[in-house]
Amino acid sequence: MSSSTAGQVIRCKAAIAWEAGKPLVIEEVEVAPPQKMEVRLRILFTSLCHTDVYFWEAKGQTPVFPRIFGHEAGGIVESVGEGVTELKPGDHVLPVFTGECKECAHCKSEESNMCDLLRINTDRGVMIGDGQSRFSINGKPIYHFVGTSTFSEYTVVHVGCLAKINPLAPLDKVCVLSCGISTGLGAALNVAKPKKGSTVAVFGLGAVGLAAAEGARISGASRIIGIDLNPSRFDEAKKFGVTEFVNPKDHDKPVQEVIVEMTGGGVDRSIECTGNVNAMISAFECVHDGWGVAVLVGVPHKDAVFKTHPMNLLNERTLKGTFFGNYKPRSDLPSVVEKYMNKELELEKFITHEVPFSEINKAFGYMLEGAGLRCIIRMEG
Amino acid sequence: MSSSTAGQVIRCKAAIAWEAGKPLVIEEVEVAPPQKMEVRLRILFTSLCHTDVYFWEAKGQTPVFPRIFGHEAGGIVESVGEGVTELKPGDHVLPVFTGECKECAHCKSEESNMCDLLRINTDRGVMIGDGQSRFSINGKPIYHFVGTSTFSEYTVVHVGCLAKINPLAPLDKVCVLSCGISTGLGAALNVAKPKKGSTVAVFGLGAVGLAAAEGARISGASRIIGIDLNPSRFDEAKKFGVTEFVNPKDHDKPVQEVIVEMTGGGVDRSIECTGNVNAMISAFECVHDGWGVAVLVGVPHKDAVFKTHPMNLLNERTLKGTFFGNYKPRSDLPSVVEKYMNKELELEKFITHEVPFSEINKAFGYMLEGAGLRCIIRMEG
Repeated sequence: MSSSTAGQVIRCKAAIAWEAGKPLVIEEVEVAPPQKMEVRLRILFTSLCHTDVYFWEAKGQTPVFPRIFGHEAGGIVESVGEGVTELKPGDHVLPVFTGECKECAHCKSEESNMCDLLRINTDRGVMIGDGQSRFSINGKPIYHFVGTSTFSEYTVVHVGCLAKINPLAPLDKVCVLSCGISTGLGAALNVAKPKKGSTVAVFGLGAVGLAAAEGARISGASRIIGIDLNPSRFDEAKKFGVTEFVNPKDHDKPVQEVIVEMTGGGVDRSIECTGNVNAMISAFECVHDGWGVAVLVGVPHKDAVFKTHPMNLLNERTLKGTFFGNYKPRSDLPSVVEKYMNKELELEKFITHEVPFSEINKAFGYMLEGAGLRCIIRMEG
Repeated sequence: MSSSTAGQVIRCKAAIAWEAGKPLVIEEVEVAPPQKMEVRLRILFTSLCHTDVYFWEAKGQTPVFPRIFGHEAGGIVESVGEGVTELKPGDHVLPVFTGECKECAHCKSEESNMCDLLRINTDRGVMIGDGQSRFSINGKPIYHFVGTSTFSEYTVVHVGCLAKINPLAPLDKVCVLSCGISTGLGAALNVAKPKKGSTVAVFGLGAVGLAAAEGARISGASRIIGIDLNPSRFDEAKKFGVTEFVNPKDHDKPVQEVIVEMTGGGVDRSIECTGNVNAMISAFECVHDGWGVAVLVGVPHKDAVFKTHPMNLLNERTLKGTFFGNYKPRSDLPSVVEKYMNKELELEKFITHEVPFSEINKAFGYMLEGAGLRCIIRMEG
C-alpha cells in the first residue's frame, strides 16, 4: 500500500480477541488515520509474549474486550499524524509497550526509563491523545492493548512508543527486541552489569531469563548458573551460555543455600525472571556479601511480599528492580538492534517457531504448552 | 614513654568493665608486647560510640567480661610486632573495629570492605593471631573489644585494623572518624552518592545520621529532609545541612507517604541510620521510582524482617546496605582525614562534650541520656 492511504481509513486484517481466553478471530477491521503525535504503521512480523497471553486470559484483571493484542513486532511507517517530525513513511520501527516522551522527569533522568506520560498501562484500551480507539468494526470500537496492538496488519501507535531502527535489520528477527528479549538482556547489560570472569545466577529459563543469560555471556561471565523447576530447559539453556543447572526440586534445602555452597559464598550477580516472590528472595539471598547485586525482572503477584533479614542488606548486598531492562525505548533500542547487526547478540536461537498470521492461535498454543521460546507470526502470506 | 618500652610489658591505666552495665573502673593493667602482625599504640584521645554502650549493657548478646571497651580513637604507634612493615613507632593512627588484610577476596574487590580475616567480631575477646589477650591484671586476662580496646592508655591492635594518617591532623578531632562519623559520611559519599541539587532523606539524627547529612551537604544536595521522633534534634541538625524536618509522630499516615507528597514523588536518595526495621521500610518506600536509592546503615534487631511489595523494586528503586560507609579502613580513612584537613568536612560540630579519662563514666551518662553527639575522652591529664 502506498502513501496514497495517508489520511484515509485503512481496511485490513486483524486478530480480534472478542472474549477472554477464546481463540482470536481474524477479520477485517478499519484503522483510522493517525492523529496528533501518532503514527500508523504496517506490521510485517509480530511475536507472542507471555504478557499477551496473560491479559488475553484476563484472570484477575479488568477484562477489556474486544481487543487487539500484540506488542512485540517490527513494522514500517505508513503515515504520520500532526506534530510527528522524527518519523516519516517508510521508516522501520519497533513498537514498544512503554514509551519515552523525552520531556518528563523520568525521560530527562539518565537513570530511569519509566516515562510519566507513556508508561505501560494495561487497562487503557484507547489512544492517550483523545481517549478514542483507532480500530473499529462496523462502527464499533475495538480496544487497543498497551498502545501497540500489533496483531493487525496496520496499527496506530504514539510516536513516543516507536523506536526507529536500521532499515537493513531483518524485521523477522529484530521484532523480538520489542519486549521480552530486551527486558532480559538489559537486566544483565544495564543493571546487573556482571564483570568479565564473574559468576551469574539466572532464575527462570524462559525467553526473558535466557536473554539475561545471553547478556551475562556477552558481558564475559565465566559461570552462568541457570535455576528452573523444569529440567528439560537445561539443554536449550546451554546455547545461551548457561554453564550449570540447579533444579530447586533436587534439594532439601533452600536453593540460595545450594548456590552459596556451589560458589564459595555466593554469586556476583543474580537475575530473577520468574516473578515468583520466593524466587526473588532466593535470588537476593544467593548473592555474595560485599559486592553481590540481585536484579528483579519478573512481575510479582499483586499480593506478594518480599521478605528478608535486613542484615542481608547491611552486608553490602544490593537489590534492585528493572523495567524493560532499563532501556529507554526510543533512545536505546536502535543500539540493541545494532548489537544484533554486529553479531554481538544472537537472536535466531530465541526463535523456535514461525506461523502465518492466519494461524496465530497456534502461537498461543505453543506458549500455553511451554513449547519453545518465541513464535514469529508472519503478517503476509 | 620512649621506644625503650618495645618488647616489654607496659603497665598503664585502663578502664575495666568488670560486669555488664556496671560503671567502668580505672585501674592498672599490663599490656603485653605486640606479636606477629600486631602493633602496640598509645591512645591519646578516644570517644564513646553507641556500640560500646550496647555491648557494655550486654542485653541479648553473649557477655564477655572483664573487658576493655572503646573503638573510636586516635593514637601513636609505640612498637610493632614481627612482620609489620607499614607502620613504625611514632606514626599517627586511627584504630578501626573492622580491618583490611589486603589479601582476601573482599579486600581485592573494589566494591567491598568486608575483609574475611578482620571483619568485625563482637564476641571475640582475644587477638586473632594466637587467641590470647594482651591485657592482664595480676596474671588474669582482661578481654579485648572488636580488636581495638581504646579505653586504655596503651592497646594492641592487628596492623590490618590501623589507618596511618597525616601526623598533622589533630587526634582530638579526627579520632571520631574511627567509626560512627565515617559510617554515616561514607553511606552518603560512597553509597547513596546524591547528585548536586538532589533531595536526600536521612532517618535518625544521631551522630551517624548527621554525618550522613554532612555527606549529603558536601555532595551538594539542595534539600535534606531529617526524620526523627525527637523534635529537639532539628536545631542541631540544621548545622549539618538538614533543611526540613519530619516527625513521624506528627502524621496519621506512614512517614513515607508524607515524604512522597512533600517531594512530588519521592526523594532521590534516602539513608536509614536508626536500625529500626520500620524506618528501613519507610526509607525504602520514600525514594522516587525510576532512580531512587535507599541506603541502610543502622543495625537491625536480630529478629527483624524487612518487608515490601516487590513492585516497589521493579519500579527501578534500589535498596542497598553499607558497613562502615563502604570505606576500606587502611586504604580509605587517610583520605577522609584529608577532607577534614582541607576544611571540606567539619568535625567540630560533632564534638559536644569532653572529659578526662578519669571521668569516662560521665561519657556513658551523656550517651544514655541522649545528650549531644560525641564526647571526647582525653587520656592524658
